[in-house]
Amino acid sequence: MKFICQGQELTDAVLKVVKAAAVRTTNPILECVKLKAEDNTLTLMCTDLELTIIKTIKADVKMEGEAVIPAKFLSEFVRKISTEQITFTKQGENLIEILYGENHGQIQCQNAEEFPEPKELTEPESFQIKSSSLRDLVIKASVAVAQDDSRPMLRGVLLEVKDKKLKGVALDGVRMALITKELVDATQEFGIVITARSLLEIVKLLPEDDTVIKVQTKQNHMMIDLGNTIFITRLLGHKNDFVNYEQIIQSTTKTYIVVDRQRLYDSIERASLLNWTERNHIIKFNIKGTNLTLTSNSEHGNITENMQIEHDQNDIVIDFNGRLIIDCLHVIGDQFIKINFCGNMSPALIVPNNNSEDYLYLVLPMRV
Amino acid sequence: MKFICQGQELTDAVLKVVKAAAVRTTNPILECVKLKAEDNTLTLMCTDLELTIIKTIKADVKMEGEAVIPAKFLSEFVRKISTEQITFTKQGENLIEILYGENHGQIQCQNAEEFPEPKELTEPESFQIKSSSLRDLVIKASVAVAQDDSRPMLRGVLLEVKDKKLKGVALDGVRMALITKELVDATQEFGIVITARSLLEIVKLLPEDDTVIKVQTKQNHMMIDLGNTIFITRLLGHKNDFVNYEQIIQSTTKTYIVVDRQRLYDSIERASLLNWTERNHIIKFNIKGTNLTLTSNSEHGNITENMQIEHDQNDIVIDFNGRLIIDCLHVIGDQFIKINFCGNMSPALIVPNNNSEDYLYLVLPMRV
Repeated sequence: MKFICQGQELTDAVLKVVKAAAVRTTNPILECVKLKAEDNTLTLMCTDLELTIIKTIKADVKMEGEAVIPAKFLSEFVRKISTEQITFTKQGENLIEILYGENHGQIQCQNAEEFPEPKELTEPESFQIKSSSLRDLVIKASVAVAQDDSRPMLRGVLLEVKDKKLKGVALDGVRMALITKELVDATQEFGIVITARSLLEIVKLLPEDDTVIKVQTKQNHMMIDLGNTIFITRLLGHKNDFVNYEQIIQSTTKTYIVVDRQRLYDSIERASLLNWTERNHIIKFNIKGTNLTLTSNSEHGNITENMQIEHDQNDIVIDFNGRLIIDCLHVIGDQFIKINFCGNMSPALIVPNNNSEDYLYLVLPMRV
Repeated sequence: MKFICQGQELTDAVLKVVKAAAVRTTNPILECVKLKAEDNTLTLMCTDLELTIIKTIKADVKMEGEAVIPAKFLSEFVRKISTEQITFTKQGENLIEILYGENHGQIQCQNAEEFPEPKELTEPESFQIKSSSLRDLVIKASVAVAQDDSRPMLRGVLLEVKDKKLKGVALDGVRMALITKELVDATQEFGIVITARSLLEIVKLLPEDDTVIKVQTKQNHMMIDLGNTIFITRLLGHKNDFVNYEQIIQSTTKTYIVVDRQRLYDSIERASLLNWTERNHIIKFNIKGTNLTLTSNSEHGNITENMQIEHDQNDIVIDFNGRLIIDCLHVIGDQFIKINFCGNMSPALIVPNNNSEDYLYLVLPMRV
């Protein structure tokens, strides 16, 4: 194997693929980048067996071949070079020589044949969506994903294709996020569950604009092929394996309030300040007429925050874990939000007030 | 105690004084801010018994008095308020009420009498220096301060007043930094040792311009009084307690090189990349004519970096811990540096090439 490539192109490609490299594993080859020189292109690939990222760039290939070198070394190295051209040459079985400017290095490499092959998807189901829509959906749903491993399926986001729309659902037992986005096209209706970690790595590398991308799935894998970049991820499961989320949403709203999002965010942040020695940030919401009063108490003192709200009718007093509300207010984009209450023992429903987007966040009150 | 102060002024003052508050100590009062309302001013003070920072701001004092409240709470709180006016009122023995806008909080406070009083310096020795000069001296000297506690005096920087100049010296057994700055004035010659940690906290809060500041010392303390802000720190010792650094500097240079600082920095960074499993970053410097070749070797491979240099005569091969050179190149400001060698078993001396500043960094080679 011998090829010459452009420093900047190599740097960009390496820094993308290494997002899928394993960290601290018992199988060291998963901590490596596979390089494949073929047909005047260089293909770089990393995988931790859950997520695979493959990227292809132009290269002047002098001799075709493959090599596997440590991702940690290569990503640090490309960050620190400013050379225009870099030459990689395989020397013998397990050494790569790198020439850059007046300098050179030799690095131990591993057997490329032991590197796991990516899954191929034959006759997949698929949907097409704007890149920015998928990105937004994943970021907003991931907020509600479970942080512990007690129910592995809840580490995932359900992506459900239905009625030409894509729904993203995540829940962790105390809250649920449901986001709906328009699809450009879909082959059929289906639902797949993917870990939030893989989805977040993928959407961070997707274009931030309205480019239409195609998401394909078959059996236990999902693939997004952008041409020069391919993402493949293992599914956690299908819709049947996930919680039946439709049962959770009730529509028996007894009262609602409309409140300035930033104002509520700042108030909860301040009211949470006294809970520094506790794990639960209990905040009491006291809604009376057009006043919302938040109160928090701890051994260190108490804080009372007041704000004006729009409110339809019934007064209510209800306790929440402030962190759960903050998480939602952090990703919601609107200036005003609406909170629907069904009683102080029932979940509350947070939505953007102007319905500018199809976003719904359900949060359980605390029983104090 | 009752006073009203401006939100922004309070925020600025709190965020400065809390730099001296203790973290995780057995004496919780050291994790607090002392507030003292008197004569239309509010004085805030924190101390960890080594460093004390005192700041005074304007306040509308309705009732004079003192209170002590947790620094962690107060610093987070002031970061999260945007209110113009804040009212603090002491309620009974151990509660402070805080009014901000439509909101209010009550926070437990401690007995102000138990808060340690700052040291007063009577008839001190002193020197006067430009703020920017002191700042630069401390930042450059601190690089060479010992990171472990085996010899506590080496956690400090020696500040020596001599011949109308201030010398800053730090060393850790394998390298030494010596910086000399012009003084504006000095009462007499003396030398004091202060922990790098305290000095760095202080200089970060000093004006970045040429304001002349007065540094006073007496017995075991040093004080800088900027009017609204006072820093007091305990001395680690005096000149006699510190290493006799003048003995270390020899002037038997056998050869020297002049090299581009950034070029050398980048090369050492790359040559260190293969040492990720080792603690010592051994880099071999091979100087031959106008060529400097750096090489590094590890179980993962090897790297060779070449660069052009200016060089007077004798060739030399010498091994360094790359990190020690990087630390110096990081703070030195010049485009070119000069390295003087006395032989491959003797310390090398790094100085800025154009002598634009009086800076000297001595580093021991490694015996491989």
